[in-house]
Amino acid sequence: MLSTAAVVLAAGQGTRMRSRLPKVLHPLAGRPMIAHVLDALERAGIEQRVVVTGHEAAAVEAELPSGAVAARQEPQLGTADAVRVGLTRVPEEVRHVIVTMGDAPLIPAELFGALLHEQAEGNAAMVLLAARVADPAGYGRIVRDADGGCRAIVEEADADAETRAIDEINAGTYCFDAAWLRASVGAVEESPKGEFYLTDLVALARGAGRRVRVLDAPRPELAMGINDRVQLAAAEGLLRREVAERHMRAGVTIVDPQTTYIDATVEIGQDARIEPWTILAGRTAIGEEAVIGPHATLRDSRIAARARVWASIVEESSVGEATQIGPYSHVRPGCEIGPDCRIGNYAELKKTRIGAGTQQHHVSYLGDAEVGERVNIGAGAITANFDGERKNPTTIGDGAFIGVDTMLRAPLTIGPGARTGAGAVVTRDVAAGKTVVGMPARPIELRRRRSEGIGSGTNGRNPEGEPGERNLQPGGSAARPDA
Amino acid sequence: MLSTAAVVLAAGQGTRMRSRLPKVLHPLAGRPMIAHVLDALERAGIEQRVVVTGHEAAAVEAELPSGAVAARQEPQLGTADAVRVGLTRVPEEVRHVIVTMGDAPLIPAELFGALLHEQAEGNAAMVLLAARVADPAGYGRIVRDADGGCRAIVEEADADAETRAIDEINAGTYCFDAAWLRASVGAVEESPKGEFYLTDLVALARGAGRRVRVLDAPRPELAMGINDRVQLAAAEGLLRREVAERHMRAGVTIVDPQTTYIDATVEIGQDARIEPWTILAGRTAIGEEAVIGPHATLRDSRIAARARVWASIVEESSVGEATQIGPYSHVRPGCEIGPDCRIGNYAELKKTRIGAGTQQHHVSYLGDAEVGERVNIGAGAITANFDGERKNPTTIGDGAFIGVDTMLRAPLTIGPGARTGAGAVVTRDVAAGKTVVGMPARPIELRRRRSEGIGSGTNGRNPEGEPGERNLQPGGSAARPDA
Amino acid sequence: MLSTAAVVLAAGQGTRMRSRLPKVLHPLAGRPMIAHVLDALERAGIEQRVVVTGHEAAAVEAELPSGAVAARQEPQLGTADAVRVGLTRVPEEVRHVIVTMGDAPLIPAELFGALLHEQAEGNAAMVLLAARVADPAGYGRIVRDADGGCRAIVEEADADAETRAIDEINAGTYCFDAAWLRASVGAVEESPKGEFYLTDLVALARGAGRRVRVLDAPRPELAMGINDRVQLAAAEGLLRREVAERHMRAGVTIVDPQTTYIDATVEIGQDARIEPWTILAGRTAIGEEAVIGPHATLRDSRIAARARVWASIVEESSVGEATQIGPYSHVRPGCEIGPDCRIGNYAELKKTRIGAGTQQHHVSYLGDAEVGERVNIGAGAITANFDGERKNPTTIGDGAFIGVDTMLRAPLTIGPGARTGAGAVVTRDVAAGKTVVGMPARPIELRRRRSEGIGSGTNGRNPEGEPGERNLQPGGSAARPDA
Repeated sequence: MLSTAAVVLAAGQGTRMRSRLPKVLHPLAGRPMIAHVLDALERAGIEQRVVVTGHEAAAVEAELPSGAVAARQEPQLGTADAVRVGLTRVPEEVRHVIVTMGDAPLIPAELFGALLHEQAEGNAAMVLLAARVADPAGYGRIVRDADGGCRAIVEEADADAETRAIDEINAGTYCFDAAWLRASVGAVEESPKGEFYLTDLVALARGAGRRVRVLDAPRPELAMGINDRVQLAAAEGLLRREVAERHMRAGVTIVDPQTTYIDATVEIGQDARIEPWTILAGRTAIGEEAVIGPHATLRDSRIAARARVWASIVEESSVGEATQIGPYSHVRPGCEIGPDCRIGNYAELKKTRIGAGTQQHHVSYLGDAEVGERVNIGAGAITANFDGERKNPTTIGDGAFIGVDTMLRAPLTIGPGARTGAGAVVTRDVAAGKTVVGMPARPIELRRRRSEGIGSGTNGRNPEGEPGERNLQPGGSAARPDA
Repeated sequence: MLSTAAVVLAAGQGTRMRSRLPKVLHPLAGRPMIAHVLDALERAGIEQRVVVTGHEAAAVEAELPSGAVAARQEPQLGTADAVRVGLTRVPEEVRHVIVTMGDAPLIPAELFGALLHEQAEGNAAMVLLAARVADPAGYGRIVRDADGGCRAIVEEADADAETRAIDEINAGTYCFDAAWLRASVGAVEESPKGEFYLTDLVALARGAGRRVRVLDAPRPELAMGINDRVQLAAAEGLLRREVAERHMRAGVTIVDPQTTYIDATVEIGQDARIEPWTILAGRTAIGEEAVIGPHATLRDSRIAARARVWASIVEESSVGEATQIGPYSHVRPGCEIGPDCRIGNYAELKKTRIGAGTQQHHVSYLGDAEVGERVNIGAGAITANFDGERKNPTTIGDGAFIGVDTMLRAPLTIGPGARTGAGAVVTRDVAAGKTVVGMPARPIELRRRRSEGIGSGTNGRNPEGEPGERNLQPGGSAARPDA
Repeated sequence: MLSTAAVVLAAGQGTRMRSRLPKVLHPLAGRPMIAHVLDALERAGIEQRVVVTGHEAAAVEAELPSGAVAARQEPQLGTADAVRVGLTRVPEEVRHVIVTMGDAPLIPAELFGALLHEQAEGNAAMVLLAARVADPAGYGRIVRDADGGCRAIVEEADADAETRAIDEINAGTYCFDAAWLRASVGAVEESPKGEFYLTDLVALARGAGRRVRVLDAPRPELAMGINDRVQLAAAEGLLRREVAERHMRAGVTIVDPQTTYIDATVEIGQDARIEPWTILAGRTAIGEEAVIGPHATLRDSRIAARARVWASIVEESSVGEATQIGPYSHVRPGCEIGPDCRIGNYAELKKTRIGAGTQQHHVSYLGDAEVGERVNIGAGAITANFDGERKNPTTIGDGAFIGVDTMLRAPLTIGPGARTGAGAVVTRDVAAGKTVVGMPARPIELRRRRSEGIGSGTNGRNPEGEPGERNLQPGGSAARPDA
């Protein structure tokens, strides 16, 4: 049996945003404003959540999460009218109704809980959320009565000098006695402009001898609605700070919390270190003692413990323990990179699996590839994975050594321990342990027989160059990254 | 007939900047400080603008815009002497003279207008611009008279405790009754240091029974001169914030205004989104709903609607609608990139035109090239546009397919629908629809005849590899960018 | 003969850091917190510095600089006990003892000096460092006596409302009369928790008729200890600001001090300009009028006057006068780049020397190379410096012209003025002035004789492409960088 509900006002036009997008759909930390509101209400345990839509109603309704229901207000006749519309979707048994704004995305769940508690404990007709602000100009001032309750909300236009000096304002969020609200909201009188205002309920409650209480927001800056993009940017900053502090208190070093963007969905292990100018987005998880940044962007990726991602981008991929990526690398969606790898300086990868200890140290491109362990990918190597019709796979066995500037024309299999010469264009599979050279690449002994003199691009002593300073030797056992 | 003039004091040495560059030439938001001052005066409608130069006079004069005239002060005998020198370039008919500092680049045009109005309306001999500051130490305090006028400016050294407690200081900007100023500036007496101070005019005016009024700067932080590079950095931050807020209020989302640099000359369309760590410089224009950044630098470029530039640099170029650039690309001066293109991951372009729907998805370089529509540029492809003497053009026809690691030795024409093999070194024109392979590249059928066995780098089924996941098929009709 | 000593308390666990690393070893601006403390004490002229260790004692002791000695506190029985342990390493002749915390890394040397002076001049038993803070909750309040001395330190738990309202708190740093401290520290009584508190010395001193003085920290935010990573990030910000302001006052332009990271060890010449999102780390030195950034990271490198490093990374290398690097380049350890060079757009270098006026304008890799003057390195050129066993050197003579996509298989020498064709795989030395082409590369006249028709990748008129717009002509004399 439901006891609590919330009516979220989202019908307004948000003119000051100057946007084609409805205001409550503007993203904040990667999600629409209103999603933050509904989330906080859910975390506060509010069982039924009704969103009152109006302006661009269909667009807003399309973005609502499954747990919320919409009630459409047409025409838009003010906040009291909106609440009346919203109540049509609130079950009869509900006893406490929160009313809040779809453009107030920073109100914490705890504050909704406190409003509920204040209303229920005090048996108040309504509780107003108040904010004490440095500059109250333009807001409705809260005039208290002798008992600390609300005597009236006075709008700027109606306020005398003394009232204007009040720095406690109506934040626009309330908790109501549901029965009283249902009975009273229809009694609000039409304003000269033809609208019905929720704040008129204060006088109705007091006239009926009911209490109207006030709850001051502990952090006023979180209670306010967002009216333009300047306030939106300020909200971004506040949210960024909140998330960063949560991680810092849990044992993550964030060198500069103001220039680090961490979505609320991100997990970070203890003693990880996040360097400046870094974005951790979506369902990203960072392992313990990993070092991310500076200048890194990670999205929906899992980074294992002690890995390092530096001045690079990783999307929808996983990175193994102690692997190093960067600088200037781009791990595109669908990659699984094993432990102890070294990826970077201009490495691009897509839908590629890489085994433990493999080195792709320099500029190169791997797409749709299965790469074994302890493989060495030379500078300039490229998988030609697209034939104009299909994407074709490349398989590279353990311990293979792909020479500099090697083109691998997929579909293609390079056997374990095989090698390719500098500049080779490999168009046929290479057997385990074999070396191919030339354009098109052929086994080195065959090629030598065929065309001595202008022969191969390699010789027995030094078949192919590989530019990595401390790269893995072919067939070697340990990958030692550069300092 | 001229009515207003301004004398801008720019003769000082600016020792605390510790610079070889004259103080007023230090750049702020990409332009010399004094250019901001002259701009604001022009926007305020001040007809004649005189800059009094002294220290490094020639260097300063060389940087003045055409609308300003210089008057050289030699030797530099104080502010009153500088104004006397400046007046020699102010026409007789001028009735109101603003005096301001070349190192106060943040004073808005509106404030100059307000000073003019205050002086003219009040028939004052002079109006002082005042600033209320938290720490007035070191500044001349403004002592008001009973009518709110200025009784005196008291320098720190001459101030008693009560006067030192005054937090209203002389900002160093004035508006004068021109006739009175001409008649009086010569009457300022020499100080013990041998200089003539403008602030002595307060006593002269009052002694003559003329009014000296005070105008408080609404935002004191904009009224102050810049004396060292700490203040210069603070001014940068203020200006950055001003410009960002203007765009936000006009309907642009700027995720982090404090780490976004937008020159005053930049235009941005509605619902564009600017991500962090981005620089928009010079005559850059951003289309509606475009997404720029993070980590983007754009200079003197036009970005069409719905385009995206990500972790890349674009200079003196244009980018078509819905085209995506980045990450890690560099579009150098002189490029025109059509709509629906996909440029990036390490693409470098210079003086190159690219037609609609073309893909240059991976590491590659195009210089002095004309590229058609729906072309596919493979990973590692390079135009060799310089022969040691001349820059030579490369032309690539619609629907051509440039294979991975293809070298295009300019001057060169690749016909529509032509294809090149992986690793090809193309030294001769390729006819429409033909495929060339090898080093040097030759038509595939010719090459096969000539050297069977070690033959071609391609075959009929799969002539050349192209690594882009969803790259355009040769001859295809739609470019679908990667997710 | 020693006169001053310091006892640094570093035995605590620092639970709120939630870290495996001992708190005092957490890095701040690249160095452990406690290193900052010991540094400031040394700069203040404190002769003997004792660190009292306890929790993770061995780890902390391993990181202490040679000038500091450790005294291990086992078990940890409170601050007075820690001081008692520390005093065992303080020579008898020492007359003044500073006690401070290993987690208070921002206290300036001058403040330690002021504490010493206050204690010695006033002949006080002890001087407390106090801080006036906006929110004193949780800290011990300082209750002053009529003479401005300290009557008591009252802990939060013991404070009445009036005392709680005091905003002057005990910062936890002291200077003692050494003789009195030695005699008195043992007299501190055990607390109910079984610990001995240093603050009890206030009552002991007053009971003995000795003075207890208070010194207010001029900048309270520098006096406080760091207890969690939120405070650590705040300290980073303060330190960053301090260092940046020092450079700005000395004549360096730092466009955005809050997003610029400069280690205390970095030197910067006059009129250099540091653009945003830049890191200058370790023993880096920047020459006069150099421009660094945006988006640059430099570590342990020397950048000469008028050089520019843009959106690139330079590590353990030197860069010559007026040389330009970037964007997206990575100069790895061990490089010496001469004057007037142009490196960049995706250039990677490692252990490589480059002579004056050389151009490596595009994507390419040089490792273990000696490159002469006025050399042109083509796009896609790569040194294959690793043969699977050794790193091998490449030598390129003055005025050589390395064509696009040339592979240089080390060990290799390219003579002065020699040239390589597009796509060449060079496996043998090339004599001065000679041109080689093909895979493997052979002299052009030899190759032509051998295989006419499919011959060389070059011809007499246009031997190899080089994509740089204004690159140096082979054998030319002046390097003109791109605009």
